[in-house]
Amino acid sequence: MAELGARARRAARTLAGLPTARKAEGLTAAAGAIRARAAEILSANTADMEAAQGLSPAMQDRLLLTPGRVEAMAAGVEAVAALPDPVGAVIKSWRRPNGLSIAQVRVPIGVIGIIFESRPNVTADAGALCLMAGNAAILRPGSESLRSAAAIHGAMVEGLVAAGLPGDALQLLPSADRALVGAMLRAEGQIDLVVPRGGKSLVARVREEARVPVLSHLDGICHVYIDRSADLRMASDIAFNAKMRRTGICGAMETLLIDRAIAPRCGPILGRLLDAGCDVRATADLLPLDPRLTPASPEDWDTEYLDAILSVATVEGVDGAIAHIAAHGSGHTDSIVTEDEATAEHFLSAVDSAILLWNASTQFADGGEFGFGAEIGISTGRLHARGPVALEGLTTYKYKVRGTGQVRPD
Amino acid sequence: MAELGARARRAARTLAGLPTARKAEGLTAAAGAIRARAAEILSANTADMEAAQGLSPAMQDRLLLTPGRVEAMAAGVEAVAALPDPVGAVIKSWRRPNGLSIAQVRVPIGVIGIIFESRPNVTADAGALCLMAGNAAILRPGSESLRSAAAIHGAMVEGLVAAGLPGDALQLLPSADRALVGAMLRAEGQIDLVVPRGGKSLVARVREEARVPVLSHLDGICHVYIDRSADLRMASDIAFNAKMRRTGICGAMETLLIDRAIAPRCGPILGRLLDAGCDVRATADLLPLDPRLTPASPEDWDTEYLDAILSVATVEGVDGAIAHIAAHGSGHTDSIVTEDEATAEHFLSAVDSAILLWNASTQFADGGEFGFGAEIGISTGRLHARGPVALEGLTTYKYKVRGTGQVRPD
Repeated sequence: MAELGARARRAARTLAGLPTARKAEGLTAAAGAIRARAAEILSANTADMEAAQGLSPAMQDRLLLTPGRVEAMAAGVEAVAALPDPVGAVIKSWRRPNGLSIAQVRVPIGVIGIIFESRPNVTADAGALCLMAGNAAILRPGSESLRSAAAIHGAMVEGLVAAGLPGDALQLLPSADRALVGAMLRAEGQIDLVVPRGGKSLVARVREEARVPVLSHLDGICHVYIDRSADLRMASDIAFNAKMRRTGICGAMETLLIDRAIAPRCGPILGRLLDAGCDVRATADLLPLDPRLTPASPEDWDTEYLDAILSVATVEGVDGAIAHIAAHGSGHTDSIVTEDEATAEHFLSAVDSAILLWNASTQFADGGEFGFGAEIGISTGRLHARGPVALEGLTTYKYKVRGTGQVRPD
Repeated sequence: MAELGARARRAARTLAGLPTARKAEGLTAAAGAIRARAAEILSANTADMEAAQGLSPAMQDRLLLTPGRVEAMAAGVEAVAALPDPVGAVIKSWRRPNGLSIAQVRVPIGVIGIIFESRPNVTADAGALCLMAGNAAILRPGSESLRSAAAIHGAMVEGLVAAGLPGDALQLLPSADRALVGAMLRAEGQIDLVVPRGGKSLVARVREEARVPVLSHLDGICHVYIDRSADLRMASDIAFNAKMRRTGICGAMETLLIDRAIAPRCGPILGRLLDAGCDVRATADLLPLDPRLTPASPEDWDTEYLDAILSVATVEGVDGAIAHIAAHGSGHTDSIVTEDEATAEHFLSAVDSAILLWNASTQFADGGEFGFGAEIGISTGRLHARGPVALEGLTTYKYKVRGTGQVRPD
């Protein structure tokens, strides 16, 4: 680990000084190499798939590569190469009365560790984002995707080196030994940030063991609150989309909050969800609205279903919604539906989550939907970067102070 | 700890929603209460001083309060109340093609833990900064300053409550029990950030034990590099100020690097430091310049003296300086003296420290000198905030997304 880390640090120093065009050329060459080596990557994936017969169909689907998925991976790397480079951007600058000129300038973080599970394409996606932001990456795939990830990694490094970039910019842990994850998580001074990409148990383990900073979210218990001043047709569309568009993503709604004042008029909203096969668990006062509703239990308010299951509670207006989210939310994404601007602004300010939406679906919690072109993940941490994290979140800053001989008086 | 944390979280939620004027009124009232209770604070300090007879004169000086120091503390709190409020500022905003309007808005971090040693005035300084940025603070003074800190804390809370702010916004750990520090450092979910204020051993312990994020610097091994294109008179002034203005601060120069090409002309620069009583330890090639120079040992390059001691090395031009700093620097503050702009810009970009200066003294590494009005500390971490950290570094952001009924397409 120490040797890997030292090599990554040297590569990071080189990357930090590269102009945008050189990084983009490297990633374009890496994308080309992924295409050129598609057959090799697919054959490695076949071996992974054969060894994965015992895994769940969902995990096998995440693991599977097809010619289309390999092409999408290469195109994704090219898309990252075309994103605006955050490095070198002046965040702020000002002049002091003594003539010192101070600039706060974006720089790469340094060395990023990516720990992931079954999706081999994370090698390309996360690797490309780290590199474009000037960081070296150390990748640790799950044991089930190791052959696929190694083949993708080999292709990318070939491309990077052909374009004159350091091969150590993108390193892959060479074995599936679980102790190596522990070593990464304790590699203070060698790894500056770890990003876990995978299920809740992986994220929880990484958070528990890490001595280095971690960028992650554990839960996405996202709420939609329908206010008394809501357009109920809009509310129905948003609630339906927030729950049912994709139920397994972290931005999916898990709890619907309904202003008690309009609860009697919300039967059709719940009926539409029930019609679509959603299991809807509601507070007692809502049960008369539809015979298919079942009573919610206290654990429902703290559960991320990631499935076609929804808990529904009535609350006492917007402040009731804010209190419910403060008690049960996970700081991820929450939405209010209302036609009243003051109520909306109160909700946007008072709810303490990374993403707050007014009259829009929680499923917009995504770097691509934010216009970032990609994302390395969504953070519910309170420091550094929150919400969807892309290139800018993979940078930090330094101060450049330009003077003309100033010394500090006593 | 859990109860303290829960009270702090409630107070933080209130503070986060307060307009600037209310926070400023609270701090102004706290400053007034410090003045009104000056006699009580001084008498508590007398008791601390009596118990501190065994401590070093330097520690006793840090502990001592005088009427002037109490007044300065009150004035400092008022100065923080007059600073621009970062909370609510829109960092960035943009509109997506689907009409969603996205704003990245500054919000408080939440609950900040401050762990400090002998300076009782940290109670007021750090407390005021946390509050003005909308955060609740939990303060843990060193045992030697406990009575003084409690008196200051009591006065400030009286002022805050009189101004209608929650008293729990500023809590003081009620005992000197060391186990309480451990509890703070493991209070994930209750404390969002810990700032240690004190010597290296305190910072090291906090970093070692903390499960919550820590904002700190461990070492300030700051360098000044005199390039072949330097104005040597300017270089002499900067080197002298960087070392001798105050030798005990983290921004003091510890190592002077001299371009080999001009080393023979740097005798007067070293002579001036030697004349002022500085112990100058140099590489062998410099020793002939002055008989008072002593040979540097390998440990000198990694030592933060915090005293009138300096190590001096010749290096092969600016790249030699960059390599030396990469090997021995602490990522704090480094300066180049040169008349050549390209050389300066190369140094500012290539050296990986929080603060880089061109033709200015390293002793400018200070929030006040940066124009921040104050500082909670200087960070050499790579995430969130680097360099001098003041109000803005005590905030994070959320995304406010305003729509008109948008749902996410498949």
